[in-house]
This record gives sequence, structure tokens and C-alpha cells, in this order.
Amino acid sequence: MNKYKLIIEYDGSKYKGWQRLHHTDKTIQAKIEALLSKILDEKVEIHGSGRTDAGVHAFAQVAHFETREVIEEKSFIDICNNMLPQDIVFKHIEKVSADFHGRYSAKSKKYVYKIWNSHIPSALYRKYYYNVPEKLDVVNMNKAIQILIGEHDFSAFTANKSKKKSNIRTIISIDIKQEDDKLELIFYGNGFLYKMVRLITGTLIEVGLGKKTPEEVKNILASKDRKKAGQTAPAHGLYLIEVDY
Amino acid sequence: MNKYKLIIEYDGSKYKGWQRLHHTDKTIQAKIEALLSKILDEKVEIHGSGRTDAGVHAFAQVAHFETREVIEEKSFIDICNNMLPQDIVFKHIEKVSADFHGRYSAKSKKYVYKIWNSHIPSALYRKYYYNVPEKLDVVNMNKAIQILIGEHDFSAFTANKSKKKSNIRTIISIDIKQEDDKLELIFYGNGFLYKMVRLITGTLIEVGLGKKTPEEVKNILASKDRKKAGQTAPAHGLYLIEVDY
Repeated sequence: MNKYKLIIEYDGSKYKGWQRLHHTDKTIQAKIEALLSKILDEKVEIHGSGRTDAGVHAFAQVAHFETREVIEEKSFIDICNNMLPQDIVFKHIEKVSADFHGRYSAKSKKYVYKIWNSHIPSALYRKYYYNVPEKLDVVNMNKAIQILIGEHDFSAFTANKSKKKSNIRTIISIDIKQEDDKLELIFYGNGFLYKMVRLITGTLIEVGLGKKTPEEVKNILASKDRKKAGQTAPAHGLYLIEVDY
Repeated sequence: MNKYKLIIEYDGSKYKGWQRLHHTDKTIQAKIEALLSKILDEKVEIHGSGRTDAGVHAFAQVAHFETREVIEEKSFIDICNNMLPQDIVFKHIEKVSADFHGRYSAKSKKYVYKIWNSHIPSALYRKYYYNVPEKLDVVNMNKAIQILIGEHDFSAFTANKSKKKSNIRTIISIDIKQEDDKLELIFYGNGFLYKMVRLITGTLIEVGLGKKTPEEVKNILASKDRKKAGQTAPAHGLYLIEVDY
């Protein structure tokens, strides 16, 4: 069998998320598996670096698959992009060694959460930025970020209820980028728990609005209690931007 | 009567253009007039700086209207933005003198045309950039731009068939901005004829692809013959970004 690594961009707006589901084919994984199975004339399964939730986007999701065929990479990309829905695009394909795994080989990930921080909503960016009308206090947000950086048990910042697996992760950095009314939070870490980026974003927004102090974020983290964290920021502002192997 | 100037952002994707039409209310002007007439409880007409075609966007269209009411500007904007469809937003409103006119007082305008210049289409920007797969030769495009800048009869670059009005306009500048796969053409002029920006863009793209030479653009301009110009670039890449008074 030959193993290939795909880099995929998608607009998650119309999908029920990455992960294949039984009751619907409106998932990104299902669309890609259906296409690859058709083109390669064999049943193809893809293994993504991780799930993204309904409505979440990706500039560069990574997945691997195996096939009996040897793929001519450049023409294969063109054929696939012509047949895929326009909101899913293959950006790159390459042959990888047998021990590569889309999920288990991933060493770190980057996400960006995009906020439209203005009293005046945006007509043109409304689907791709989360509108926070009140001005965010970036100084206080950065104080809270310093508390979250590093290796911690992030149980307070996940919707994952399973107690079996470790909730310890390392956040390498959270950078704030501002340009006019656009505010981006760039998350870089060795892995993120279910809904972790959106829960941290929701909490940082509450800090930026003065509803929570950086000191409280310290207590939330220590409590390991999800009920103490802020709201889950909506899906449409979130993008997976990089997976490193 | 009191006269007000509005600055409006809109996503033109779902509309039949700016201009009010008899057979449909799916125009931006119609949506705004219906809203203002309702809120102000009198028949309100708005006068835009000019029409935009079906599918064309605006970061800052300008229009004026008259009303018997005195408007409290800040709260009025909020009320309107809450009632408008999400793809139309009022960014600013101010009282203006009786001699101000949205269209006739306009002295210059800026448009941007956004091109996604990559062999790999974009899933996330597909609705807001025009995808040109082959790499564009910016040096040749700039040579053609030098020919178009200045005061000329732009009859070759308009779909306007009326011979009654002058087709002489002044293009002050056309700047090319490139960042990764994004290529923007920023048009600045004292006024633009019907479909002029899209026809010039379509022609400049053909120059960038080597299908036309800058010398040919000189001949097209001199011919005043629309049939000689390039194709009309599609609406979804075009944005009105500024109107100066």
C-alpha cells in the first residue's frame, strides 16, 4: 500500500464538522472519502490530524490515507479540486513513509480565532469573524494568557467529559494580533482538547470585557471545573492553520 | 427638511445590485429605503454615489436622504443595524448641508478588485476573490496601467451604449498590491463608467497572462471600441471602498 499526506483547506460553514457521521454525509471527512474512493476505485479512509467542530474552518488541515495506486501528485490535485465542492480544496499531496499517521504523528498545532472588535458589525466579514461590539482590553487579556501558557491540566477548558484520558496539554504561545477592528488570537500548542480553543477564547473575551480578572483565570485553571470557565466562543471565528509533524 | 449622509458597507453576493428595480426588492437601495421609510414613518428616498452591479460589494458606499425628523445619530445607527439584513451595515451617519448630493457632489472614488492568483483555488476566499489560476505578469500589467492613467475617453472600457453623455474620465492611479496569492488592483479616479473597472480589470488580466501586450491596450483605448477590450471580470471580486466629496 502507498501512503499519502494531504493538506486541506475548507470553509466549515455548511458542514457538521470534520468527522464522518452515520446519519449525514455533510461532513468534510465524508466528502473527501467519497471522492477519493470514487477516483481511486477502492474504499479509502482518511485519518485527519484531529476533528474540527461544525462550522469551524481550516486553512491547512492534514490527513493521511492509503491506496493501492501510485498517485501522480500534481494532476491528482487538479482532478480532485475539480470534483470537490468549492468549499473544500486540496492544497498539497505528498507520499509519506508507512509509519506516518495524520493524528498520532502530529507534534503541534496552530489555530487562529478571528474577532471583529467593533460596535459597528461587518457586512463583509460577518461569516468569518466573531463580532464582539465592546472594545477588548488587550493588556488584561495578555495577563491572562501568561497564566495559561505552559503545561497544565486544562480540564476547566474542555467540553470533553471523559475522565479516562489525560487533560494535560502544553500551550506554547497565544499571540494577539490587532489591525484596525480585527483582533486575532493565535494559539500554538502540542495539542488541544475538545472545544479547548473556543473555551479559552470565550474566557479571554470575558477578561477583555472586564467581566473576569486574570487572577480569576488562574483560579479557573486550578479548579479543573469547566463550569467556572467562560462561554464557548462561536465556531465561525475558528480556523485550524497549521499541523506540524 | 434635514439632510443626512450615510456610509454603508454591503456584501453584494445576494443582491441584484444597488439600484432600486421595479420587479424585485432584492436590491440594496430597496432594502435601505424600506427600512428608513419604516423607522422614520415617511417615504424616504436615498441617493447613492453611483450604482454597483449585481454581486459587487462595498466597504463604503455613500448615499444621502432627506427627512422631516432630526436624527440622534449614534442610537439611529444601532437601531438600523439591528433591523437591516446582516449583509448591509450602516457604518456612519452625519447631518449635511442642503447642497450636498450623494451622486453629484462626489469628487473621486476608489475601488478595489481582488484576485486570488493561484493554481490552487481558495475554499475560504472563493466568494470574495476572483480566482486566476495562472501567475500574472505584474511588470507588464503595470506598463498597461501607465497607458490608462490620466484623462481619456474610456468608451472602449464601458458597457454603456448611450452616446449622449461624455465617456471622458480621469484615472488618477491604479495600484497593484500583492501579498502571497492575493493580488489587489486599487482604482482611484474622478469617476468610472458603467462596468469600467471590471472591463479594465479583465483587460489587465489578459495582459498579465500574455494574451495582450501593453501596446495593444494603447490601441484599444484609442479605438474607443468596447469589442476590442478584454472580458468583463466577474462581479464578486469588486468592492467600492471610498467616495470623496
